[in-house]
Amino acid sequence: MATKTLEILIDEFNKLPGIGRKNATRLAFHMLSLKTEEVEKFSEALKNAKENIKQCDLCGNYSENVLCDICADESRNNKLICIVEGSRDIISFEKTGKFNGKYHVLLGKIAPLNGITPEKLNIKSLLGRITNDDIEEIILGLSPDFDGEITTAYLVKLLKPFGIKITKLASGIPIGGNIEFADVATITKALDSRNEV
Amino acid sequence: MATKTLEILIDEFNKLPGIGRKNATRLAFHMLSLKTEEVEKFSEALKNAKENIKQCDLCGNYSENVLCDICADESRNNKLICIVEGSRDIISFEKTGKFNGKYHVLLGKIAPLNGITPEKLNIKSLLGRITNDDIEEIILGLSPDFDGEITTAYLVKLLKPFGIKITKLASGIPIGGNIEFADVATITKALDSRNEV
Repeated sequence: MATKTLEILIDEFNKLPGIGRKNATRLAFHMLSLKTEEVEKFSEALKNAKENIKQCDLCGNYSENVLCDICADESRNNKLICIVEGSRDIISFEKTGKFNGKYHVLLGKIAPLNGITPEKLNIKSLLGRITNDDIEEIILGLSPDFDGEITTAYLVKLLKPFGIKITKLASGIPIGGNIEFADVATITKALDSRNEV
Repeated sequence: MATKTLEILIDEFNKLPGIGRKNATRLAFHMLSLKTEEVEKFSEALKNAKENIKQCDLCGNYSENVLCDICADESRNNKLICIVEGSRDIISFEKTGKFNGKYHVLLGKIAPLNGITPEKLNIKSLLGRITNDDIEEIILGLSPDFDGEITTAYLVKLLKPFGIKITKLASGIPIGGNIEFADVATITKALDSRNEV
């Protein structure tokens, strides 16, 4: 028996990824419990983000300027490109503080079953960067899931002819992970890629 | 390396209950992936809900009119009041389709440690309803947790002098629940309240 306006708000929350009906209801009620200014702040943050955040002309990362902060940062290594699926992955890589190169955001993964073909991804501009710049290494930083592996295989085939060093993230048991609970594919991979110590 | 506007949006999502930093980031990025109209729809739904939804003058439930749909519904039993903590609980009760009375929303539970005393709850108007109307039964529909039990005990003491029948929701093993995983308090309660079959 939610009111109509409340139903609409619940519906909007329900559209968000990973937010079910129950959770959406909880969030909508939470919003009603806030001060008007707080709700307006949230509402403004949404609109501002959508209005001001565009894609970096060079790498496809989210940016408020023509070039994103990373592409504009001259202290970073221009000859090293890490290819990622989305801007969110960049945040994960940056957190490590161990990568000083640039990125290239594909804006998705190849998923033929969902109609996402290579043409729909941000690959053309990647080829432009490779031809123009003096790239030394390309790191394929895609998740080792089904679509990620397809995309990685496609990119390897596409990029090999350029004669640039191409590397791929290591797979294995996650740090702090438990072998008992690791899946067969991960253990197999960890065995295959075992290192001498 | 999220942009500043994006950081603000992530912060806003992060303020929501049960939404951690990672999830907030995911939701903010999802918003950026939507069409501008869709973001505006969300943003409007928030503001509209906050602007138009007030509290029912009689029971305290969320309402867009002076009286909520339930209080305004003359086909419902006026002599039966179910006391609940919040409007969300009303949705849960209504889903059962088994309750045809009215509600009274306390707008919280007594929690002395958090400074929530009976005076801060919607109790005064409850007493008004009891005095004015010809109530036959009051159902205490609060969650059987610590604060809920305190509130129930308080209300029992407060309402007893009116000579109205007061009932309380049954506690026990949830339907479909597993005795193996039920906690001691619940099993004890289920044993104490066992029924002859």
